Amino acid sequence: MKIQNYKDVSGVEVAPGAVRRILAGPDEGAPNFVMRLFEIEPGGGTLHHTHPWEHELFVLEGEGVLKSGNAERPVAEGDTVMVLPGEQHGILNTSKELLRVICVVPLVDGKMPGMKPT
Amino acid sequence: MKIQNYKDVSGVEVAPGAVRRILAGPDEGAPNFVMRLFEIEPGGGTLHHTHPWEHELFVLEGEGVLKSGNAERPVAEGDTVMVLPGEQHGILNTSKELLRVICVVPLVDGKMPGMKPT
Repeated sequence: MKIQNYKDVSGVEVAPGAVRRILAGPDEGAPNFVMRLFEIEPGGGTLHHTHPWEHELFVLEGEGVLKSGNAERPVAEGDTVMVLPGEQHGILNTSKELLRVICVVPLVDGKMPGMKPT
Repeated sequence: MKIQNYKDVSGVEVAPGAVRRILAGPDEGAPNFVMRLFEIEPGGGTLHHTHPWEHELFVLEGEGVLKSGNAERPVAEGDTVMVLPGEQHGILNTSKELLRVICVVPLVDGKMPGMKPT
């Protein structure tokens, strides 16, 4: 059993203004899925993309929009988002405060899958 | 894509003082894992138990202890816990405030698995 605070996990900027920390994944022995935490600065966001695996999101703090194709829907603290395999998506911080989001993805062939913009 | 606030998801008391809400699971089309949110009252907690699947936890709010066998380790806001398959575990709210925790489990045969006390 591993316990660690997310602030002690190093982050990597994966998109403009969006830092990803891997909280529970293959390095922690995760067999099936990976819990990550994204910190998105005002004006930042993840790329609009699609892939054949799902996301399960939980908004910890802040406000933003969830894009899917031409649609935009607001998200805020306490919201959970189920992004199904194949659904276009991207999250943007449209507020003036930090947006923090948990995002869980499945392991694919034992690794955290990559993504490609659409 | 489904977006809902956790407060709009009905909860069930699954252990004394511990309410579980299923935020993203089979009803939302989740193919591989289920995101749940536990709200644990002061003095409450989940049963000490073990099972052949993992947990990935994230402490949203509050303080408590993570039991595993005879060991107890403190957990607080921002902590993440990787509970490996087969590890004994139980979470207790030892504080005077509400403890809120995200807990993700894999689907087993397409369903959210049950648990048994140890």
